[in-house]
Amino acid sequence: MNFTFRNPTEILFGKGMITEIGSRVPRAGTVLLLYGGGSIKHNGVYEQVRAALKPRRVVEFGGIEPNPHYETCLKVVELVKKEKVSFILAVGGGSVLDASKFIAAATCFRGRDPWDILRTSGENVKAALPLGTVLTLPATGSEANSSSVISRATTNEKLFFTSGHVFPVFSVLDPTATFSLPKKYIRNGIVDAFVHVMEQYMTRPSDAPLQDRLSESVLQTLVEVGPVTLARPRQYEPRATFMWSATLALNTLLGSGVPQDWGTHMIGHELTAFYGIDHAESLAVVMTGLWRYKMKAKRAKIEQYGRRVWNTRGTEAAIKKTEDFFKSLGMPTRLSAYNIDAEEAAGKISARFAERGSAFGEDGDINADAVFKILRKLK
Amino acid sequence: MNFTFRNPTEILFGKGMITEIGSRVPRAGTVLLLYGGGSIKHNGVYEQVRAALKPRRVVEFGGIEPNPHYETCLKVVELVKKEKVSFILAVGGGSVLDASKFIAAATCFRGRDPWDILRTSGENVKAALPLGTVLTLPATGSEANSSSVISRATTNEKLFFTSGHVFPVFSVLDPTATFSLPKKYIRNGIVDAFVHVMEQYMTRPSDAPLQDRLSESVLQTLVEVGPVTLARPRQYEPRATFMWSATLALNTLLGSGVPQDWGTHMIGHELTAFYGIDHAESLAVVMTGLWRYKMKAKRAKIEQYGRRVWNTRGTEAAIKKTEDFFKSLGMPTRLSAYNIDAEEAAGKISARFAERGSAFGEDGDINADAVFKILRKLK
Repeated sequence: MNFTFRNPTEILFGKGMITEIGSRVPRAGTVLLLYGGGSIKHNGVYEQVRAALKPRRVVEFGGIEPNPHYETCLKVVELVKKEKVSFILAVGGGSVLDASKFIAAATCFRGRDPWDILRTSGENVKAALPLGTVLTLPATGSEANSSSVISRATTNEKLFFTSGHVFPVFSVLDPTATFSLPKKYIRNGIVDAFVHVMEQYMTRPSDAPLQDRLSESVLQTLVEVGPVTLARPRQYEPRATFMWSATLALNTLLGSGVPQDWGTHMIGHELTAFYGIDHAESLAVVMTGLWRYKMKAKRAKIEQYGRRVWNTRGTEAAIKKTEDFFKSLGMPTRLSAYNIDAEEAAGKISARFAERGSAFGEDGDINADAVFKILRKLK
Repeated sequence: MNFTFRNPTEILFGKGMITEIGSRVPRAGTVLLLYGGGSIKHNGVYEQVRAALKPRRVVEFGGIEPNPHYETCLKVVELVKKEKVSFILAVGGGSVLDASKFIAAATCFRGRDPWDILRTSGENVKAALPLGTVLTLPATGSEANSSSVISRATTNEKLFFTSGHVFPVFSVLDPTATFSLPKKYIRNGIVDAFVHVMEQYMTRPSDAPLQDRLSESVLQTLVEVGPVTLARPRQYEPRATFMWSATLALNTLLGSGVPQDWGTHMIGHELTAFYGIDHAESLAVVMTGLWRYKMKAKRAKIEQYGRRVWNTRGTEAAIKKTEDFFKSLGMPTRLSAYNIDAEEAAGKISARFAERGSAFGEDGDINADAVFKILRKLK
């Protein structure tokens, strides 16, 4: 399939690379330092960032939530305008990074209602403030792409937007900045990265052998390195490999020129919106269920994946290996683990898709009815 | 290893994508259309490009040689200055693309002697004209990196430079633009891409399992698709896969964070400079000879490569598979195929390295003496 691929983000990878910010953030103007719950104040990252930003004028906003809230972002946009911020530095995980992208776009948005940025998936974004990132949680790939997911707390909506204007100018990936993360975050990050690859890979066969092999490279690396970095959080090499894998999982290279699914994410977002389970938890529940529903279309690819990544034969073995891998990381694969009633979830969530009239997946056939059938089996 | 990675080039991939130039080249100013021997006038590419550039002012220069000459490039720089060119569109293979990068940098060069750009490997390049490319020969990867190799005919020198300022703004990769290429060019392109991966992969083990697997993905794809696209030049999918593989082979992703060799290229450049054999021909002769010389350091990696790409065990089997692969493409692996006396070549070329006092390779131990020992065995 024809494609365009562009990814201008400069990656600054390795121990001590936070200092490189100093030569990349413009010296003139005001920097917004954006972060989340404040963990960066306990792991040394905050001090390194503040030192690297000297002598620039810096204003701070801490308190971006997991699944960043639209309402919070709008508050930050007010701050940005009041303080005449000219560069945003997002320090944190995917939530902080996604928030920074929305804030950068909303600040320059000329439309009536900034929610339209999300309603149009970013089509109407014509400009954005420049932003850079320091990643402290490998998972979403937001550090090297132009997408952002924002939640509206008041309406339980979770929508995304994409725009070439919100690629980070640079992203610092220092594996040591992730050493102090709780195990649960690493578990989530591994699953998130794994499913990101799958959304771009696990479709119908598409005559793209190089893309297939690149995706399988990331999957296999996550399988090898995931359990190691979970068990030995302060060992540099496995953590570095995991961090780089999570970035490549969603820097848009793997999805170039091939059909993409993203059905697991669409359904998963609703599980998070309705029940508050973590993003990665929702993905681990939905993915293989969606595969089973789409078995006819995906069969050849599931078999190839099983053969090349797990050295198994057949679709059942490939699915079992995948679920066992998730479980080995301590990640449940069924709704019952969260005391969520599958019938109820299927009803609520399919109703929302029916209301929107949307259908998705690589064949555009995951509609409200399909969502119902997929979810009710995930008890 | 710590690294920075940045590659802002927009890839426009697929049949018919030449029309996309129209929305990407600035409308104001003058475009230099740069090409080589004129084959683009026989395969329809020239007409497509001229149509896409309308209504801009365009000046043309045709006649960039294979292994583009410094002397020719300087003539084009004069033309560029006289015509006040503001954008360079390079249409052709690696030679035309490399020439366009040098011309773009030399036009803006403030130093006394533009040869200094090559003598300093690009360190003193502070600006360049913007450039775009339409690739008609998949091989060098120049379409998606910031490097360029230029030959000085009067002194038999072949040097490279790298600068972030000469990344193409965009590169069009239309597989159909390569359908009419002679088989020899495709053979050369496959080998060139294969060796590019090897220069970034075949070193000592370096605790970078994802980089290893990504490189192996490209190698394996070239092994699978190379013979197919050579035999069936007008079949779209294999040609498209080969074209994309050659780009990824040298867009600097595979070499990020790992030691790199480039010894095969350094020695190969001299074989081309002295004896006029094609770039890819020189690489196919030198590579496995260099592996044998560096066997102690490279053993583990050669074994891994043999196991994963060829499903063989041991270094000898891996080397044999590699040479057999080259031969199956019609590519010789010894100097005798070109009636070059190995002793003489070893003497001449090692003398040049002795004169420069240079040593290279991932361990910096490929000096004049090593070059002599490697080359004399390649009878």
